[in-house]
Amino acid sequence: MAGLTNPMLKVGYPATLAAELFGDFPHDIELIPLPCPLERDVEIDVWIPDPYPNRSLQIAPRLRGVRLVLSLMAGTEWIPGAMGPRVTICNARGAHNVSTAEWTVGAILAMLKYFPFYLDLQRAGEWNRRFEVGARYAAITGDTRPIYPPLLVEELTGKTVLLVGHGAIGKEIERMLEPFNVHMLRVARGARADPLVHPVTDLDSLLPQAEIVILILPSTAESHHLIGARQMALMPQGALLVNAARGPVVDTDALVEALQSGRIRAALDVTDPEPLPVGHPLWSCPNLLITPHVAGSSPQFSPRALRVAADELRRYIDGKPLQNVVQSAI
Amino acid sequence: MAGLTNPMLKVGYPATLAAELFGDFPHDIELIPLPCPLERDVEIDVWIPDPYPNRSLQIAPRLRGVRLVLSLMAGTEWIPGAMGPRVTICNARGAHNVSTAEWTVGAILAMLKYFPFYLDLQRAGEWNRRFEVGARYAAITGDTRPIYPPLLVEELTGKTVLLVGHGAIGKEIERMLEPFNVHMLRVARGARADPLVHPVTDLDSLLPQAEIVILILPSTAESHHLIGARQMALMPQGALLVNAARGPVVDTDALVEALQSGRIRAALDVTDPEPLPVGHPLWSCPNLLITPHVAGSSPQFSPRALRVAADELRRYIDGKPLQNVVQSAI
Repeated sequence: MAGLTNPMLKVGYPATLAAELFGDFPHDIELIPLPCPLERDVEIDVWIPDPYPNRSLQIAPRLRGVRLVLSLMAGTEWIPGAMGPRVTICNARGAHNVSTAEWTVGAILAMLKYFPFYLDLQRAGEWNRRFEVGARYAAITGDTRPIYPPLLVEELTGKTVLLVGHGAIGKEIERMLEPFNVHMLRVARGARADPLVHPVTDLDSLLPQAEIVILILPSTAESHHLIGARQMALMPQGALLVNAARGPVVDTDALVEALQSGRIRAALDVTDPEPLPVGHPLWSCPNLLITPHVAGSSPQFSPRALRVAADELRRYIDGKPLQNVVQSAI
Repeated sequence: MAGLTNPMLKVGYPATLAAELFGDFPHDIELIPLPCPLERDVEIDVWIPDPYPNRSLQIAPRLRGVRLVLSLMAGTEWIPGAMGPRVTICNARGAHNVSTAEWTVGAILAMLKYFPFYLDLQRAGEWNRRFEVGARYAAITGDTRPIYPPLLVEELTGKTVLLVGHGAIGKEIERMLEPFNVHMLRVARGARADPLVHPVTDLDSLLPQAEIVILILPSTAESHHLIGARQMALMPQGALLVNAARGPVVDTDALVEALQSGRIRAALDVTDPEPLPVGHPLWSCPNLLITPHVAGSSPQFSPRALRVAADELRRYIDGKPLQNVVQSAI
């Protein structure tokens, strides 16, 4: 058997990805396409899971010998439960920065420019109802001073933004917000200087200043329901909560209540549960934009994520330290 | 009569603006609030028109002695016809830069992230139809290569953007697009170097490269229907046309045809005619975002525009050259 005389590293990848995409991969490996479902057990050393966790969870029990998992996604929260503590898990840090950061800036501007309301007018074919925006602004912000000409949009420039999470995507969001001269506040698990990042224990004390709160942190046991009823109550009236992280970081019941009562606004790319079921109260909450977990997608997704995976695999083969480890094998 | 012994400059302003907003104005002038309609003729030296041209056009025939018009808006196309060639007209250059540039970036991202489609899904309470975006992308761009995971959004980063108009707002748009590393092409009435601005006669030769075309130039006789059927045919399949200027810069009939046939996409803050009447075919065109002439609005609008007007008025009183002249009195 060739495998015994020449034990090449076996790398399993989703058969949904075209073989041409693996051009950057080392040549001294054996690439094994994994269909879904997988009819029998397969022995591999390295696993590149399908970007859709549901598909990967189906085949995970059939995999034998896996020592390294190279995720194409930034979020890897489902992998330790499926693969146990004896595998090293890396994510595709960097592959999603651009698209997720673009979504975040776009979602903030869409909300401040009242695009959801204007799109409703467009669908109804009505121009003149634009003057309802002034009343909407007054109702959600509590700012009832008379404004002439009537207010039709808000501005991002000069607003105070609280970034919750300061990893690669958080930094990219900050870079894209630079031209808007926002006052940037940051919290993350660990406090840092230059730029100043507060520890997450400071969250409650920072929220009252935050006109815009951006969630871009990993979904972990500690971040579960990090934003609940108390945190929403601490935000300024009419503040905008943007979730570009994972649904469970926010307490959905508390969010529904805060939206229905007109306390805050929100833009969500992720929800809890997900997919959001038909008839869920979030669908019909006011002052809300929902996109169905699309922010990290991109036409450039697979080539970019596989380039990150190829780099990591080369380091693994060469015995160099891995760069994007989210779980080290015990 | 005090006016004869002490001929203070008479400055007429719309009674819709609160008197407190004029705190920055010189103190040696007489501020005269002008109601609309105006029951009798009024003698003033300087006129600050109501930001709504319809209101200003109503009272213009009642004004006597006007030598200087200080518009609070960037667009002043209605003023020469109403006031004749013997008045100097200045616009509020600078007052609308931020909000209009923010709208432009927001509208581009909204279109590339398919927010109009996703908002339709949100209104319908459906998550899983997100996979229709791949077919929409293939149909409008002609890029039918298989993409896995399925495409759910596009990216702005790295796109080629053609800026048509390079005044204060155009420069501000360019500044806000910097983090997206776009390839920027520029045309304006006059060619310039550093940065390279092509003459408008080069428009047709540049259009085939332009994945995004941004209109931000004045509405004049020369710019009327600058973008017609021929220009739309020259754009790449699925290019995005963004009109943040004035409706008549685009040939509406040609645009309706280009949208209905799936040639290009568009985001419009302005239309021709305006307001867009109930039942107009633009309302129901595909791949289109319409906002009802809201981009230049802002909660900070009046204070900011009046600060520009106050500066200009002080220069006028001191006999210094004016800064934002769009028509010199003959």
